Amino acid sequence: MHILVTNDDGVTAPGLLALAREMRTLGRVTVFAPDKNWSASGHVKTLDRPLRVGETTLADGSPAFACDGAPSDCVALPLLGFVDKVDLVVSGINPYSNLGHDVTYSGTVTAAMEAVITGVPGIAFSLASQDKTTTEATDYSHAAHIARLVTQKAIDGGLPEGVVLNVNIPYLSRDDIKGMMITRQGLRVYRDALDRRIDPRGRPYYWIGGDAPTGVNEEGTDVGALLNGYVSITPLQLDLTNYKAMDALRKWKF
Amino acid sequence: MHILVTNDDGVTAPGLLALAREMRTLGRVTVFAPDKNWSASGHVKTLDRPLRVGETTLADGSPAFACDGAPSDCVALPLLGFVDKVDLVVSGINPYSNLGHDVTYSGTVTAAMEAVITGVPGIAFSLASQDKTTTEATDYSHAAHIARLVTQKAIDGGLPEGVVLNVNIPYLSRDDIKGMMITRQGLRVYRDALDRRIDPRGRPYYWIGGDAPTGVNEEGTDVGALLNGYVSITPLQLDLTNYKAMDALRKWKF
Repeated sequence: MHILVTNDDGVTAPGLLALAREMRTLGRVTVFAPDKNWSASGHVKTLDRPLRVGETTLADGSPAFACDGAPSDCVALPLLGFVDKVDLVVSGINPYSNLGHDVTYSGTVTAAMEAVITGVPGIAFSLASQDKTTTEATDYSHAAHIARLVTQKAIDGGLPEGVVLNVNIPYLSRDDIKGMMITRQGLRVYRDALDRRIDPRGRPYYWIGGDAPTGVNEEGTDVGALLNGYVSITPLQLDLTNYKAMDALRKWKF
Repeated sequence: MHILVTNDDGVTAPGLLALAREMRTLGRVTVFAPDKNWSASGHVKTLDRPLRVGETTLADGSPAFACDGAPSDCVALPLLGFVDKVDLVVSGINPYSNLGHDVTYSGTVTAAMEAVITGVPGIAFSLASQDKTTTEATDYSHAAHIARLVTQKAIDGGLPEGVVLNVNIPYLSRDDIKGMMITRQGLRVYRDALDRRIDPRGRPYYWIGGDAPTGVNEEGTDVGALLNGYVSITPLQLDLTNYKAMDALRKWKF
């Protein structure tokens, strides 16, 4: 079992190291991650410039590749043959949750999508540390343990073909996590606001500002599971067709 | 009817002008597009830096906004209040088709997704000019005419809630286009290959190379429609849950 570990926060992120360490208990691990942070970067295929790949080490001294491409490039290159045949791609651990509509923005999730498009199972792991109440450094140990349990199940039971697993873990101690829940994608409530400012030379610039997103606390959804102390495991697919809407559109006469 | 027109090829792209001109026959138009090409950029929300917006003119002298953000930022900013209330967002006309798995990579399609996430209908238009047999400049006039017909239907009949329309137009003369077809998302066949080269200083760099993608010619799909001379109109949704896979995953015991 050859497992590729990547993320969207960059090769120095502590969540990547925590994930890589647990994955080593399940098989041979290659770490191949971006050399910078690509949060909210979406699904990218870098075609207009060449990519560089450097060799580096993680904080525990283990080897890793650092690439100047996006997270999905960091999956594409290894799967195109930069390394030996890969059996599974895991992405994360993202320090913030990826729920509801976040999935198409998320570099963590689109890295796993890239794997599945190429025919290799992909799992994205995110930790809802935005809910933590202290300013201490984020502790990834429980999340990494859960990532190992989920990955073990995916290896043993196999993932249904074409499925991307999107796993979100509440920021709670092991005893306070109520269990695992198979969920559907819920609804995010974005609270973005336009923030217009004037620079020192008198010219306007614009931030996408506002408050952090919330979500609709609905039973059976990823958002609902997290809010109620469960790990959410959401199977995603790459067929975005709205089959119900096809009938409505067939009534259009041109 | 206030229509926002954007794209992922940048404000100077001829496909944008062709689309904006046709949209002016349907309502008031604001053009707000990236100041550079963002092809295969995916769904982006630029949160780590402020955005600049400049005023420019299209090749016909009409006003437009040019922004240094991604296509989805060029939808977010206007919808957050940079301009008056927007009723509809159209994106394109992309010079190449966006079929099958292309949809999550495509800046053209993710711009329309951004609109729908914000609660405004969104339509993406792409022209399959990669199929053209000459090296002459791409002619967008037929595609723009079809974009107007489809947009008119969307305005008259309304789009089902939460639906993103992904419209692909074959590169054929008006007489050779066989009609419109409501389709599902088909299967792309990517033929990417790793292309390793050595730079003038002896260091390796990597292109995502290989051949252009093809698709599986299957009836009822976007790929099949295009290959058979039809315009494909595919309703997409933002719920990516694979509901069938949920049952399989519920058998996992932790």
